[in-house]
Amino acid sequence: MAEEKKISMAVIRRLPRYFRYLSDLMKLDIKRISSKELSERMQITASQIRQDLNCFGGFGQQGYGYNVEYLYDEISKILGTDRRFSCIIVGAGNMGNALANYENFSKRGFDIVGIFDVSPDKVGTVINNIKVLHMDMLPEFVKTHHVDIAMLTVPNSKVNEVAIQVTELGIKGIWNFSPTDLRLGDDVIVENVHLSDSLMVLGYRLKESMEGRKTS
Amino acid sequence: MAEEKKISMAVIRRLPRYFRYLSDLMKLDIKRISSKELSERMQITASQIRQDLNCFGGFGQQGYGYNVEYLYDEISKILGTDRRFSCIIVGAGNMGNALANYENFSKRGFDIVGIFDVSPDKVGTVINNIKVLHMDMLPEFVKTHHVDIAMLTVPNSKVNEVAIQVTELGIKGIWNFSPTDLRLGDDVIVENVHLSDSLMVLGYRLKESMEGRKTS
Repeated sequence: MAEEKKISMAVIRRLPRYFRYLSDLMKLDIKRISSKELSERMQITASQIRQDLNCFGGFGQQGYGYNVEYLYDEISKILGTDRRFSCIIVGAGNMGNALANYENFSKRGFDIVGIFDVSPDKVGTVINNIKVLHMDMLPEFVKTHHVDIAMLTVPNSKVNEVAIQVTELGIKGIWNFSPTDLRLGDDVIVENVHLSDSLMVLGYRLKESMEGRKTS
Repeated sequence: MAEEKKISMAVIRRLPRYFRYLSDLMKLDIKRISSKELSERMQITASQIRQDLNCFGGFGQQGYGYNVEYLYDEISKILGTDRRFSCIIVGAGNMGNALANYENFSKRGFDIVGIFDVSPDKVGTVINNIKVLHMDMLPEFVKTHHVDIAMLTVPNSKVNEVAIQVTELGIKGIWNFSPTDLRLGDDVIVENVHLSDSLMVLGYRLKESMEGRKTS
């Protein structure tokens, strides 16, 4: 079974991309695809694709290609897209609002079950049918609702404190939107969305391109 | 000179992180740091750090460590943090609002000079002192304002069309927040923030962790 095998994080980080492309192919009713064609669509080398997909038994056949549905199902299984995760958002500012309204998350198995803030302007307002609660209510909330993931969209100066607070309540997954790299217990999984880092890389590549150097 | 040397994109993508950590060290008035200590702080192996920093002349000395300010300056030069980039936001929804209000971007050299939308509810409103203009005004705006980067926070169904529109007006940098991987001319630089991909990786790691397997 593909799931039994240890797959490197570098490959795992590319899987959601394969998942998106394969899902698009299925919508187009495409049954088979060669690594060359997939390579052109995804702008990844064909050899990288073969290497990645071989990790979980997606062996293409010469002149025959990959079975799109099989690969899609295998990747779904590995990524665990059949699971549902209960999530809370801490920080009901613009970014918190954006996340609460993102329809894609629920389709991917991530349900927003609560939104928390400390500001009197925010507490009591309703975002996408969810009433924003005060952070003081979080311990009680976690007792009565299972929560897998806390999405932290609080100011940078508060993020450490909030991360400690939510993990002490037993929440094991943190989606961190602050520029701070959090240091938490070994049993806590943190994924970061460092927007400034991404923007700085864009700035670098743009500068290189304007000066006539190519990056990719 | 460090800038003359070709540095791989894998290293470039780690530079903003070094930049953040070195900037924190400077704020703490720390002058020198060993690769071991930097490794513990950043949770990157010391050997990876040595390899990365050697790419741009950041040679540490045995028992002496790295000169924090020198490294910070070198990384700043490579990333081009002394440059300023003019940016527009297309899509004045929650995510566009969040980006327009993000103070960090201006500190990093990215100035928001315009915000555009098509919705009558949004056009004419003011976000962080910038009046939202109708997309029809964009060609005229680009004639009178230099624009380096378009930050696209439009619905997924519109992103291709909008990306073509802004690049045809001569904008060379795209910061794409949709799940779609854009295909544009070779002279256009695209960086993606695929939120669902990041969340799916978090889900995967959480599942592995709950099942007693460790990923990192």
